[in-house]
Amino acid sequence: MKKLINQVENVVKEALMGVEAAHSDVVRVFYEPDFIVRADAPVKGKVGIVSGGGSGHEPLHSGFVGVGMLDAACPGEVFTSPTPDQILAATRAVNGGAGVLHIVKNYTGDVLNFEMAAELAQADGINVTSVIIDDDVAVQDSLHTAGRRGVGITVIAEKICGAAAERGDDLKVVADLCRQVNANGRSMGMALTSCTVPAAGKPTFDIGNNEMEIGIGIHGEPGRDRLPITTADEITAMMMETILKDLPFEVGDETIVMVNGMGGTPMMELYVAYRKVAKICQAQGITIARNLVGNYITSLEMAGMSISILKVDEHLKALWDAPVRTPALRWGI
Amino acid sequence: MKKLINQVENVVKEALMGVEAAHSDVVRVFYEPDFIVRADAPVKGKVGIVSGGGSGHEPLHSGFVGVGMLDAACPGEVFTSPTPDQILAATRAVNGGAGVLHIVKNYTGDVLNFEMAAELAQADGINVTSVIIDDDVAVQDSLHTAGRRGVGITVIAEKICGAAAERGDDLKVVADLCRQVNANGRSMGMALTSCTVPAAGKPTFDIGNNEMEIGIGIHGEPGRDRLPITTADEITAMMMETILKDLPFEVGDETIVMVNGMGGTPMMELYVAYRKVAKICQAQGITIARNLVGNYITSLEMAGMSISILKVDEHLKALWDAPVRTPALRWGI
Repeated sequence: MKKLINQVENVVKEALMGVEAAHSDVVRVFYEPDFIVRADAPVKGKVGIVSGGGSGHEPLHSGFVGVGMLDAACPGEVFTSPTPDQILAATRAVNGGAGVLHIVKNYTGDVLNFEMAAELAQADGINVTSVIIDDDVAVQDSLHTAGRRGVGITVIAEKICGAAAERGDDLKVVADLCRQVNANGRSMGMALTSCTVPAAGKPTFDIGNNEMEIGIGIHGEPGRDRLPITTADEITAMMMETILKDLPFEVGDETIVMVNGMGGTPMMELYVAYRKVAKICQAQGITIARNLVGNYITSLEMAGMSISILKVDEHLKALWDAPVRTPALRWGI
Repeated sequence: MKKLINQVENVVKEALMGVEAAHSDVVRVFYEPDFIVRADAPVKGKVGIVSGGGSGHEPLHSGFVGVGMLDAACPGEVFTSPTPDQILAATRAVNGGAGVLHIVKNYTGDVLNFEMAAELAQADGINVTSVIIDDDVAVQDSLHTAGRRGVGITVIAEKICGAAAERGDDLKVVADLCRQVNANGRSMGMALTSCTVPAAGKPTFDIGNNEMEIGIGIHGEPGRDRLPITTADEITAMMMETILKDLPFEVGDETIVMVNGMGGTPMMELYVAYRKVAKICQAQGITIARNLVGNYITSLEMAGMSISILKVDEHLKALWDAPVRTPALRWGI
């Protein structure tokens, strides 16, 4: 295992200490239980937004805490759900009196632990609404999930809901918006290589030199097909066909598109893929109004990519464009 | 070779097409010769800034074209210098009448080709000044370089000079600023794995499962030591000792620090390293006034990192903080 780490058991904590050292102008970090909040939390009268999940997907979620996006992120151990006490502590820390939205990726452990934390917070008198993200079109059930997995649309939901909360929308409005984003967003991923969880010390799965996994999950869960590697254009077309048919996206739709690297993919390759995504959208009369190309929801050092597409209206576009300042996503401020 | 590409010979061009499709609000792309300019180039009366080099280091340089940073980037083939005609065409395209600064990383091919382009541009009546960046403290001469190599400080120089040009500083001032940044900046890199140039189809160098290369260049050129892998803290301390001694950085210095991933390094590991960088600086009385943690100057999918440190004053900090809007670096607008 070739990694820039110290003791395996300290990697998540030491990475958090790095985030704290690098971004103290934007976030504050708490330990035991571990969570990250925006520097000015709690913001009185504002809906708080908490997300979280296993570590190893950075910048998701810790990189998205800040003005205009998340109020708090709860990082579990690598590829392991955060505990209810982390989520509860984060929920309390960002409660500004207007309620708290939990944005939860659909993995069984995450769902259970966020649910338990929400109940405990409610018992404290904090109004919590949870929205589950399940945008992955690749497989119905999988290793860690009943139903579809939550993947790239989470990034976009966090941005859009964060903007709504920032301008003062109430909890019901922000939660409905999150459901709208989830309902109109679809994603799919693929991998060329596995990744290695530090505590495991060996690759999560075996894959041949000429093979790729289509429809893979963000923890290396199997996808829908193990196929021989083909060209970027064919891979992209295969993924786009599944994604576009699923909603379905139709002529005249406006979208936000994310071409996301899994952690070990050169930017050059992501742009080769984005070029094909743009061609396919153009040919089908779908407009890409906004886009992200880069590493936003990763699987450690896995080589591969995911594509996420959200159908948007003027309202969602305006929220997307609103100022944001987090360690990993920033514009307008 | 596992890569998301089509034909090997088209990868650079297709990636450019992806940049064009994704960022047409910020940049325009020209082909044959290939170069990228900011969308509103040439800006009348403003010093133009052109950089470039081999592809495979993205986001450097194409990701840094836009308001407040580069006016143009010239991408060569992977790890191959751009040609004089690319550089000349880019120089012409961004000439707003106030002269053009070439920011050149110190590699023999880059230096020669930028020099030739500068002479041709001068013959056209364009006032060109070139500044060579040679910030890598690892080795004196190397495979592709006489003298020190140009690495991470290039990113910071492009940001600071871009801000100065944007506010209307003249060519002499912007060029002097670039020299100041180069004189006060130091960098060093290390690798855990090699990368694979698409046209070569196999790793650039062999490295054992328990080995790392300290002081490596951004093309996989050998560094100063091939050592057994040790902890992130020891690796970081080893690099910091060399970097800090070289300028030297001293008690009371204010700095901008970049902890940069080589392309295949999880963010988590970069933050573990940043944590140690911050500790060392604190122990030595050096203030980190600003920082970047992420992938800014990469070597395709290489696993590893580099550390760059620039000694700054109030003037450089203000230029760093000035608004920037490029595909890969954005704030304030």
